[in-house]
Amino acid sequence: MTYCVGIQVDEGLVFAADTRTNASVDDVRVHRKLHVFQWPGERVFVVMTSGNLATTQRVIACLQRDADDPDAAQSLRGFRHLFEAAAYVGRLLVESQARVDEADAERGTSTQATLIFGGQIAGERPGLYLVYPLGNCISASPETPYLQIGESKYGKPILDRIVRPDTSLEDAARCALLSLDSTIRSNLSVGLPLDLALVRAGGLRVERQMRMDATDPLYADIHANWSRRLEQAVQSLPRFPWEAPREAADPGPPARDGHPERS
Amino acid sequence: MTYCVGIQVDEGLVFAADTRTNASVDDVRVHRKLHVFQWPGERVFVVMTSGNLATTQRVIACLQRDADDPDAAQSLRGFRHLFEAAAYVGRLLVESQARVDEADAERGTSTQATLIFGGQIAGERPGLYLVYPLGNCISASPETPYLQIGESKYGKPILDRIVRPDTSLEDAARCALLSLDSTIRSNLSVGLPLDLALVRAGGLRVERQMRMDATDPLYADIHANWSRRLEQAVQSLPRFPWEAPREAADPGPPARDGHPERS
Repeated sequence: MTYCVGIQVDEGLVFAADTRTNASVDDVRVHRKLHVFQWPGERVFVVMTSGNLATTQRVIACLQRDADDPDAAQSLRGFRHLFEAAAYVGRLLVESQARVDEADAERGTSTQATLIFGGQIAGERPGLYLVYPLGNCISASPETPYLQIGESKYGKPILDRIVRPDTSLEDAARCALLSLDSTIRSNLSVGLPLDLALVRAGGLRVERQMRMDATDPLYADIHANWSRRLEQAVQSLPRFPWEAPREAADPGPPARDGHPERS
Repeated sequence: MTYCVGIQVDEGLVFAADTRTNASVDDVRVHRKLHVFQWPGERVFVVMTSGNLATTQRVIACLQRDADDPDAAQSLRGFRHLFEAAAYVGRLLVESQARVDEADAERGTSTQATLIFGGQIAGERPGLYLVYPLGNCISASPETPYLQIGESKYGKPILDRIVRPDTSLEDAARCALLSLDSTIRSNLSVGLPLDLALVRAGGLRVERQMRMDATDPLYADIHANWSRRLEQAVQSLPRFPWEAPREAADPGPPARDGHPERS
């Protein structure tokens, strides 16, 4: 399994991915799922992958082959619009999914994959797409400023509660790390290290790219801090009507006009 | 779909359930999924249900029938041990699942259900069980102090991060409400109102029972407070190495020895 999340805020794009792949619970490996293609100052693209590894590795290899070939009929170098580049990625994805006959399908074999593709081409705003196994795609929007692939449920509540278009790029990145951390904690098939990439709007390059494992001080700090902060937040939530007021040592949440704290 | 969570802490048991049932997205109803059977001072049981509604309604009806019949061969009144009561609930569950033939199964028909069953019998400690469609069951433990049925993934991270055996009963109840609120927010098939029941260890009765909808001031306050608090918590997480220090107006998290905040 896999978990990748892409976030689009006004300040730019955040991409975050785990690196665990498994053919079964006893065949677990580390593979990169976050890939950057950039021509700084001109265009920048990030692709994240989930699903069949043979399929996704072929997609990435084809993207690289075409980008390196000045005579390629189509490549990420050439498109004037991001949605055209997304459609091209979708065509490569469809091509890369080996045919599965009915008998294989019944045995559970699938060569399908799903991608998150985003970036910016000079002259356009940044964009973020989810590319389906059929090659078609949907984009993020102000109402739904994030896209997920893989094991998405555990990490969704934090995104639903926090991310809005006016969230800062770094706060969006912290949310992405929390979303991944929640998933890793609750599901064995998603694992460290993590890859993180930030694309600031107008920067036309990956501004920051990091790989983080459990010993990374920033990740360890986020991991440790978050549980402590959540615990404090739970303790400072409204009291039930029958509970005694909090002790003076614990000031509790600030009072709000028109909605006094119960105690 | 459904979401129910039971939590066992040293102070007692928390039961929380949504009330939405759906045969399809356009056949959505409200049905109670949290049921109390108690003989105060003697024994108390709570059953929460997910899965086929015809099955779960029959289980609850049989539990009530047997409890009301002084001549019943077996009933919740009679067992000396909670694990025996759980096995009896499991037998009723197996009986209540109408047989589905292969053709029906292929059409997606299922009469299966899964239950959470917990409580306390005088002379024993409280206990909490998850009863499977086969009638067998597992119990919560200090390492895994909660059990979930239904749409469990969205609400799992908050439980994983917060709930320990020494969590207070009311904090565990706040966690259960947050876990349900996260699920409701992220999944349409789980919906308000919520049922909440608290059983304090040794109390041998349901000490508190509440139904909450969106207009309930406590639920509304938790709902509103939580997003705000999460947002503050995200903003106070460690900064990335390239970020400017926080402004003086925002004190940020307290410094910790040996792990100074980055800025």
